[in-house]
Order: sequence, then structure tokens, then C-alpha cells
Amino acid sequence: MSKPYVIGIDIGGTNTVFGIVDARGHVVASDSVKTLKYADFDDYITSLKDGIERLLRANEAEDKIQGIGIGAPNANYYTGEIINPPNLPWGPVIPLAEKVSEAFNGIPVAVTNDANAAALGEMTYGAARGMRDFIMITLGTGVGSGIVVNGQVVYGHDGFAGELGHMIVKRNNGRICGCGRTGCLEAYCSATGVARTAREFLELRTEPSELRNLQIDDITSKEVYDAAMAGDKLAKEIFQYTGTILGQAFADMIAFSSPQAIILFGGLAKSGELLLKPVTEAMNKAVMSIFRGKTKVILSELRESDAAVLGASALGWEAKYRSDLNPSTPKANLPVTAEAD
Amino acid sequence: MSKPYVIGIDIGGTNTVFGIVDARGHVVASDSVKTLKYADFDDYITSLKDGIERLLRANEAEDKIQGIGIGAPNANYYTGEIINPPNLPWGPVIPLAEKVSEAFNGIPVAVTNDANAAALGEMTYGAARGMRDFIMITLGTGVGSGIVVNGQVVYGHDGFAGELGHMIVKRNNGRICGCGRTGCLEAYCSATGVARTAREFLELRTEPSELRNLQIDDITSKEVYDAAMAGDKLAKEIFQYTGTILGQAFADMIAFSSPQAIILFGGLAKSGELLLKPVTEAMNKAVMSIFRGKTKVILSELRESDAAVLGASALGWEAKYRSDLNPSTPKANLPVTAEAD
Repeated sequence: MSKPYVIGIDIGGTNTVFGIVDARGHVVASDSVKTLKYADFDDYITSLKDGIERLLRANEAEDKIQGIGIGAPNANYYTGEIINPPNLPWGPVIPLAEKVSEAFNGIPVAVTNDANAAALGEMTYGAARGMRDFIMITLGTGVGSGIVVNGQVVYGHDGFAGELGHMIVKRNNGRICGCGRTGCLEAYCSATGVARTAREFLELRTEPSELRNLQIDDITSKEVYDAAMAGDKLAKEIFQYTGTILGQAFADMIAFSSPQAIILFGGLAKSGELLLKPVTEAMNKAVMSIFRGKTKVILSELRESDAAVLGASALGWEAKYRSDLNPSTPKANLPVTAEAD
Repeated sequence: MSKPYVIGIDIGGTNTVFGIVDARGHVVASDSVKTLKYADFDDYITSLKDGIERLLRANEAEDKIQGIGIGAPNANYYTGEIINPPNLPWGPVIPLAEKVSEAFNGIPVAVTNDANAAALGEMTYGAARGMRDFIMITLGTGVGSGIVVNGQVVYGHDGFAGELGHMIVKRNNGRICGCGRTGCLEAYCSATGVARTAREFLELRTEPSELRNLQIDDITSKEVYDAAMAGDKLAKEIFQYTGTILGQAFADMIAFSSPQAIILFGGLAKSGELLLKPVTEAMNKAVMSIFRGKTKVILSELRESDAAVLGASALGWEAKYRSDLNPSTPKANLPVTAEAD
């Protein structure tokens, strides 16, 4: 009964990338449409449907799709909806799973946010194969997370669990975060956090640094990385500072779920040892002795160009929602609730 | 096939309490033996076995036991062992599940630590019936936790997950904790933490307070509670301080697993609104807006005298380890590990 392929769809602010993926995590073929070209959600779905159908025909895969998995910002696994997306124009509640399933004759569809999709991709095809307990941390513009416990993604009672970028790491005098609060991990350990640290260091300190030759307001984490790799002492200290905060936060995460590994993905993770070394040192110093030395910090094994589609596709294997089964209730994957007697 | 009763055993530093429990959480009968009377573990097991067999005969329940669940400090669900217990004399690794199963002709036995047992008890018989995602926090001499995600206790890859009492709540200048680190939640929000706060407040501040009539070095959380209930302003502030730290920590826990409820148990939880009010206020103020107002903070519904045995017994329903099946490998409940190809 089961079919050889799934479709993975990654809805980003600029492009929607989709691909046909086999059970070994090979992207058979992929293509994309512009996400923001369509003011109307139905037009977007039509364009996406046309693009996917073209890809299926070109690869003779029309009847070989087991399910569709979609990663999108603020996507809710339980309801199949995108809720209050900051960068999409189609309203506060977008019935994503329902509409995509309808467009493909009721094929099973599941949705989740980008970081959870990344965790599923890593578990299905990447560095977390065989692991039942791990945490995926995406270090990009923000800090995202996907948590796996007992082999299952942690969605929480409302489908929004796993916001580890918004653990508070500075209780007093913390930086303002995009979420409206202060002191979040994301404000320090994202790519933008590194740039903010660079600006702070350059203002508050007096040492010479290559970074002083740059426009301080436009400085990027990549420039800090390049300077550190070229031996700049202040730039190295910026990574030391970033890694220490991240490693201390990892120690708290370990107290929660004792993962076998914490897997890093995203632009800042490409800093490699420059970040990994202070992270691991700070984590092992800060963690409870019962956990010390047990949790590995490792890098994603998925190619960055494939990762988003692969992660989304991993969800396709377990998708259950079909638009034809529940036309009136677009709830994709509601948890089974036990009866209290 | 399934039988009407389980046995719950709670191994405390002073007493080992055991009881026969039915599926509705009624403790049919219970008794206890002294934990520390036996320098040799085998003698302890013999005494425990005699006590339980007496109880079974008296209640005509010899053939009606589905399984045995045991709660003990530092007990590991996966291995069935007690590891490095601070207050037990039987060595660094105690093969608890194996020996108890042997003593009862290979009956299924499962073990876990006290806080996880409390969470299972609450889910099976108490305030968490019907919940698939919640966190149990025990506020006693220390701060323990049992986390449930997708209806399953979070044991982590090594069986030791759920040490939320050792999240770091003060990164700088934090109090020394019994775990050897500084700034842990437990150092502030346990019964002893409240007493420490009282001593700090009395030393650093000058307001009059009933607490000044007490021996400052022997002050207890109960005395602070009594003073607060009698209207003492400083005592009330101590609870405000404690509750604020606890509520802020809850906000971080919610970012992790988005639980439907956080359930409080233990001596300090009996402070009721005096603690609940500042906890709830601080939590709702500190939590991300996406989670605000969703997670309830509630009190355990289990009677304190029954709770430990009930919690342990809840594990008996799902126990699988039988000494006769795996005589050479005393691993109680090993996780299934998927093959990585």
C-alpha cells in the first residue's frame, strides 16, 4: 500500500520550495514558486498545485506519493493551519493542510513549523537517525528549535511547543527581543545577536580590531566570523561570548529532556569549531554532574540547499489528515485525548 | 488476562511504604518497613517481601497483582537500578527492579524517581487525568519534576531527564545549591529556599517583622507561611519573591513543552494562594505572548498520605521487566532504538 515518494514543501518569506523525496532522503526533483506573488491564498495554492503537478509528471510520479509534508512559519501541527504569520498576506488563520489536501484529491497532508521540520528531517535522513531524544537548534536570523522526546516531536498541548530561542538567558538588563520581551536566547545567539554583540563590544571596549574598519551599524555575523578566522582577537571574543551563553542555555535544556545530542543547523552553525568549542566548554561546565559529558553537540548532516524540503518531506511519511475525510473540521492531527472518568 | 491490582512501593530515606492499589486509585491496604534497618540489600528485600506478602494474604490478593511500581530517589526507569543514592547504604548501583521481580516470581516491575512517579500518579488518578502534556513540580526540601509529553513521562536518553529544580535562575551571584552548582531554582523555591530567603531578608533589611522573634538559623518555611497568613508584611514579601522566581522559571518551561498545566505538589504547595498568586502573575507576565493564559497552575489532587504509593503504583500498570525473562540483563525498560542504516 505504501508509496515510494513524499512531497516536501517549505514555505519561506520569499520562495516556496517543493520537492519529490524518496525514503532514503534523496531529493528526486525540486522546483519553487514565489510565495508573495499572490495576494489571494487560493491563487497561491493554484500556482503551487500547478508547479507540483508539473514536477510529478516530469518524473512519472503522479501515483507514487504517500503524503505531503509542509514546513511554514507559525504552522500548527494539530490544526493544520498557519496562525498569525508575520510575513504572509493571507490572513491571521490560513487553512494550509486543508487546501493543499483538497488540491491533491485528499492526499494526506501534515504541517509544522520550520524548526520542527528540520528536526524531523534530521531524524529521518540525517545526524539524528536512530536517536529517540535530541534537540535541533536552528541558528539563523533567529534561534529556532525542534525537540524530539521518545522519538516524537514535542508539539505541546497547543501545537506551539519548542520555542527555546525564547528561553530567558538574561533576567536583568537583557536585550530587547523581536518577541517583545527582553533577555531571550535569540537576542544573543542568532546571527543578528552576534552582530549586536559586535556593536556592543566595539562601543564599550577600546581594543583595536579589524571590525572597527566596518560600518558599525551594518556589521554582520559573517564579517565577525571572517575577522575571527583571520585572527582578530575581539572577533574571537565575540564568538566566545556567544558560545558561552548558548552552552549555558543548553545545560538548562539538558536538565529538561536529557537529549542524546543537540544538533546545530543554520547560517551561524557554519562557524564550526569557532562556535562549537565555547558552546561545548560552557555546556559541560554548567550542566549538572549527572548529565556531564553525555550530550553531544553536533552539526546537521543535511545539505543546506536540501534541508528545508527534506525536513518538510519527513512529515509526509506520517501525514494522516485528508480533506475528504473531515471536510467540515480542518484539524490535521488532533491529539487523542483520554477520557477522564 | 489483566489483574485488578498493582503494588506501589515508595522508598524514602526513613520508611519504605507499600500498598495494594486498584484501577481507580483506591489504596486497598498499605504498610511499611524501615528503609535503613538493613545494611545488606538482600535483607532489606527479604523484609519488604515478607511485608508485602502479609498484606496480600490479609487482603486475599495473592493472585491479583498486575505489576509492581517503585518510586525511589535516583531510580532509573531504563535500567531498573538506583544509581548513586545519597541516602541509601547499599552501594552505588542497586539492582532494584531485578531483585523485587525475583522476590515475587518474576512479576513485572518498573522503577522511577519520586517526581516522575508523582506525575504518573497525577495522570492516572489525579488532577492530570486526560492530560497528555503537563509538568509536575514537587516543592519539598528540594524541587523535583516529572514531565509528561504526548502522554509519556520524559525520561531522556539516559533515564535521568526532568531535573527542572536545577534550571539556573540566577546566572550571577546565585545561591549555592546542594547539587554543587549555583543559582538553581531549587535553592530559591524549595521549602529550604524559602527559609534561606527569610534569613537573607532579615539580615539585609530593617523592617519590623514577627520573624525577628524566631531563631534566625532555625527558621522554617512553615514559620514564614504562618507569619504571612497572620499578616506579616516581610513574610508576605518572601512568598512574593519565591513565587516570582518560580513563575519566571515556569515561563521557560512553557517555551519548552507548552504544557496544559503545571501541577504543584509537596509541603510548600500547601501554601495555596499565598504562593499561587505571585507564581501565576509572574508566569503570565514572563511567558511569550503565544502561550499567555494557556497553561494552568494547579494543585495536586492526590492526598499527601497516599500520593507516593499511588504514584509508584501507577507505574505498575505499565511495568514490563520480568526477572525470569532476562536473567542476565537487568535492564528494566530499555528504549527501542531504531537502526541507523
